[in-house]
Amino acid sequence: MEAVEEIYKKRAEKLQSLMASDNIGGFLFTASPNLLYMTGFSEGQMPRFLSLLVPTHHEPMFLVPALYEEQIRENTWVNTIIPWADGEDPFAKMQSLLSSKGMDASTIAVDDTLWSIFLLNLKGQLPKARFISGGKYMKTLRRVKSQHEKELMMKIGAITDKVMEKAIAFIKPGVSELTIVDFIESELRRMDAGPSTAQPIVGSGPYSAQPHYRPQTEKLIQQGDAVVLDFGGTLEHYHSDMTRTVFVGEPDVEFQRIYDAVRKAHDAAMAFAKPGVRCEEVDSQARRVITDSGYGEYFIHRTGHGIGLEVHEEPYIVEGNTTILEPGMAFSIEPGVYIPGRYGVRIEDCVIVTEAGVEPFTKFRSELTVI
Amino acid sequence: MEAVEEIYKKRAEKLQSLMASDNIGGFLFTASPNLLYMTGFSEGQMPRFLSLLVPTHHEPMFLVPALYEEQIRENTWVNTIIPWADGEDPFAKMQSLLSSKGMDASTIAVDDTLWSIFLLNLKGQLPKARFISGGKYMKTLRRVKSQHEKELMMKIGAITDKVMEKAIAFIKPGVSELTIVDFIESELRRMDAGPSTAQPIVGSGPYSAQPHYRPQTEKLIQQGDAVVLDFGGTLEHYHSDMTRTVFVGEPDVEFQRIYDAVRKAHDAAMAFAKPGVRCEEVDSQARRVITDSGYGEYFIHRTGHGIGLEVHEEPYIVEGNTTILEPGMAFSIEPGVYIPGRYGVRIEDCVIVTEAGVEPFTKFRSELTVI
Repeated sequence: MEAVEEIYKKRAEKLQSLMASDNIGGFLFTASPNLLYMTGFSEGQMPRFLSLLVPTHHEPMFLVPALYEEQIRENTWVNTIIPWADGEDPFAKMQSLLSSKGMDASTIAVDDTLWSIFLLNLKGQLPKARFISGGKYMKTLRRVKSQHEKELMMKIGAITDKVMEKAIAFIKPGVSELTIVDFIESELRRMDAGPSTAQPIVGSGPYSAQPHYRPQTEKLIQQGDAVVLDFGGTLEHYHSDMTRTVFVGEPDVEFQRIYDAVRKAHDAAMAFAKPGVRCEEVDSQARRVITDSGYGEYFIHRTGHGIGLEVHEEPYIVEGNTTILEPGMAFSIEPGVYIPGRYGVRIEDCVIVTEAGVEPFTKFRSELTVI
Repeated sequence: MEAVEEIYKKRAEKLQSLMASDNIGGFLFTASPNLLYMTGFSEGQMPRFLSLLVPTHHEPMFLVPALYEEQIRENTWVNTIIPWADGEDPFAKMQSLLSSKGMDASTIAVDDTLWSIFLLNLKGQLPKARFISGGKYMKTLRRVKSQHEKELMMKIGAITDKVMEKAIAFIKPGVSELTIVDFIESELRRMDAGPSTAQPIVGSGPYSAQPHYRPQTEKLIQQGDAVVLDFGGTLEHYHSDMTRTVFVGEPDVEFQRIYDAVRKAHDAAMAFAKPGVRCEEVDSQARRVITDSGYGEYFIHRTGHGIGLEVHEEPYIVEGNTTILEPGMAFSIEPGVYIPGRYGVRIEDCVIVTEAGVEPFTKFRSELTVI
């Protein structure tokens, strides 16, 4: 395999060439998934300004809090690492670095997740600079996965399958939602999966109708509950994401009808997705099935999201996204129907686009499990 | 106890009165610890724009992704909740809300952690608006803790003490750093502590000299290792943070000298901190002791950070911070000395400022433990 340093260097060169075509002076990264993609530095954003500047026509350089200097120097391919000490102004230091090296700072692309306080401080030091969203460059770089990235996602998908099977077997009346979350997290750890940045969702009864619900200690599983289980893990920072909905006791006719519609929508989108079709078309395939079943107004979110170093990234499977699918893109397919106060159903698998269609990371059965 | 709704409302009113004095039109929150402080909404930032606008002279309103609408409506004191659906432009919606209600949008304070992509999009919709950092308002509101906040922090501090004692007893040669991390996390959970947003640091041998080190599976504890243990937990979202350094085997004379200097610095800062002194003076008390011992150049970070809903918040105990301590402020005191490639020592406790001095959250002994 290619040395990881070389992979990072090539990513920086590709970024520089994209920026050169647009006459952008450089890209300013903060501690973010994009920086992880460029350098392997995996911490999240912090109150001290930590930045990688990739100038279009100069060598990349890190500007980092002094207490991170040693750790970064040991682990990075970037040669220039400039520390700033507590008490110094890192934004003034950035300004003087740019001007001393004669770098073009008229237009600078910034990391989309850079905090506004940092952006406002940079603008204060560089009043003539125009700051633009760097999202489109990173989207272009990150959305098509390499063979190595695909392998990691297939592996973490297989682990997720196994944990889903165990979690479903663990559900019974009287167990709290949060106990099921603990069980899922412990099983993931046992299988050497890292934690996902998205916490597991275990939503039961009326809470299954809240797509981004936070599980509670107090809510115990009861007879007659639908239970939505939505979680993933990470392997070397690459994510999986999966949802199944089960029913405790005998489901009523309407629940069964909804379940069938969601499953049919999920399968229709899976069968439709392939190179050359637009993201929004995948969304409308799933949506049409649910609308035809009479539940269109209860499908209150997009059909899916890209996945990789983040649980949610480009490409989004949503109306208005005209991005054309290419081999190597990875995303979720997760239609859902939510009847407020009663129950919700969601079925989710993540897939990678192949030459002919898509291959799912997760393969656990999607038929309704009745507990 | 005061109903939690009333606490939130009073916070919003206080913010509005601070903004009125400065002629600011309003404050725009994103999913952040500040939003948690204002409403109890505890999720982190997400790719979909979720915002609370607190106009200085109008009622607060939420603009939220549709899939969060029900969850927020159920849990908030804010009356106006406006959902936006996938496919809609939330920034255009924000612009039209501001103009339809005739709100003053000439100067808008924004949450410091608002992502730059959101700020750039807002600027696109509101080209005449001036956006400023909202940090100073939230600093004023959040840095003095209420009785209820203090009690939560004392409770989570006492839990941290117990887990520190168990973790130190768990250390022995041959155990990996990450196994100790797992042990700490599991003990915290057993005592009903929520996860801290800062991961536990267990740095052994040369890695004890990296203040923000990430523990490894491969690094096993060995005879002759210093081991830095730095972690905390949460209780109803309020944090603790604590560090102890132990030695496995017989420490050399220099290690003992460094340990004594760090402990003396920690105790000097603890004894000095009281209402009326400046944050930077607390820092220099600790720093002077270490400088006098000959290790000043190896104390490479500030003496401490505020703590509350975040592990790192105002007030920072650092040179240049002239903030005057007031009863109710909470922060860490954590001097450290790091000899690259050999070992590091840090001793940390968090304290709350009282009428006469400070009271620590954590009370575990700070004498050197030799294992």
